[in-house]
Amino acid sequence: MTIKSKIRTIPDYPKKGIMFRDITTLIKDPVGFRLVIDNFTQRYIKGDVNFDVIVGIESRGFIIGGALSYTLGKGFVPVRKKGKLPAEKISHEYELEYGTDIIEMHKDAFTKDTKVLLVDDLLATGGTALAAAALVEKLGGVVSEMAFIVNLPDVGGEKRLKEKGYKIFALTKFEGD
Amino acid sequence: MTIKSKIRTIPDYPKKGIMFRDITTLIKDPVGFRLVIDNFTQRYIKGDVNFDVIVGIESRGFIIGGALSYTLGKGFVPVRKKGKLPAEKISHEYELEYGTDIIEMHKDAFTKDTKVLLVDDLLATGGTALAAAALVEKLGGVVSEMAFIVNLPDVGGEKRLKEKGYKIFALTKFEGD
Repeated sequence: MTIKSKIRTIPDYPKKGIMFRDITTLIKDPVGFRLVIDNFTQRYIKGDVNFDVIVGIESRGFIIGGALSYTLGKGFVPVRKKGKLPAEKISHEYELEYGTDIIEMHKDAFTKDTKVLLVDDLLATGGTALAAAALVEKLGGVVSEMAFIVNLPDVGGEKRLKEKGYKIFALTKFEGD
Repeated sequence: MTIKSKIRTIPDYPKKGIMFRDITTLIKDPVGFRLVIDNFTQRYIKGDVNFDVIVGIESRGFIIGGALSYTLGKGFVPVRKKGKLPAEKISHEYELEYGTDIIEMHKDAFTKDTKVLLVDDLLATGGTALAAAALVEKLGGVVSEMAFIVNLPDVGGEKRLKEKGYKIFALTKFEGD
């Protein structure tokens, strides 16, 4: 079994022309889910990528980030949509195809100079990952690497993030298919 | 260290008179997060509570449910807010204090007679847990138990869920404080 083979593709979702890569079919399979977390864990348990905390992006990044926080013995910090966090927070507004969105993180999520592994399920345009990195940096943190299950390089996110100096890791990619 | 001591209380959030119990301070601490997952794992690894899949409630239930799916070797199924799931789904509408809300689950999340452990961070009124259980049952599944980090029995959820025959497990509770 491969991780890629367990990901479902839904054509024309959320709109015509988009091939949506759906990880729910992968993670509902106990072997699929274990493979995902074991693969990430094998990469990060060696300590070559240096970080102190895992920041997961709402919502699917929470599923992966929660499991990884456990296997790697790190704390977990959520990046959430606007209005969801109860304590003092910082915000970052970023552009979508139409309009803008705002994500937030607690001000006391971590201390200055903390190194962060940023986790989400999928890298497409990279807009959300860039916004989450901006939040981490506003708090004085450093993004050591960004980890995804799926990379869609054709959409341009990988190039955009690498041009800004971020390190990217993904377990699988869909390219020209 | 106790789990309870790491939970932050935010008075008058989201509105006057509510004592909000915030688990972000617990899970950003690597020892706190490990303690949470180890405690749940010790309860469920023995097999006394029989289930095949973990259903996590968006969003904080994803953090706990993802980690538990890994430690227990089970698949993970998300219950999401309306409009977030890409494939064919079932919905359940439930009442909030003002108005209603809708949660959804994929139709192919699991097969009939599947036994489910339902996971969320906090049990207050029990409204969301009941709605999630209704979704599981619409698909022909059976809720074996509902697991929470925090139980707030004063708000009535525990009583309400038990009256309907559900089994509840929580790692800690706030009562009269």
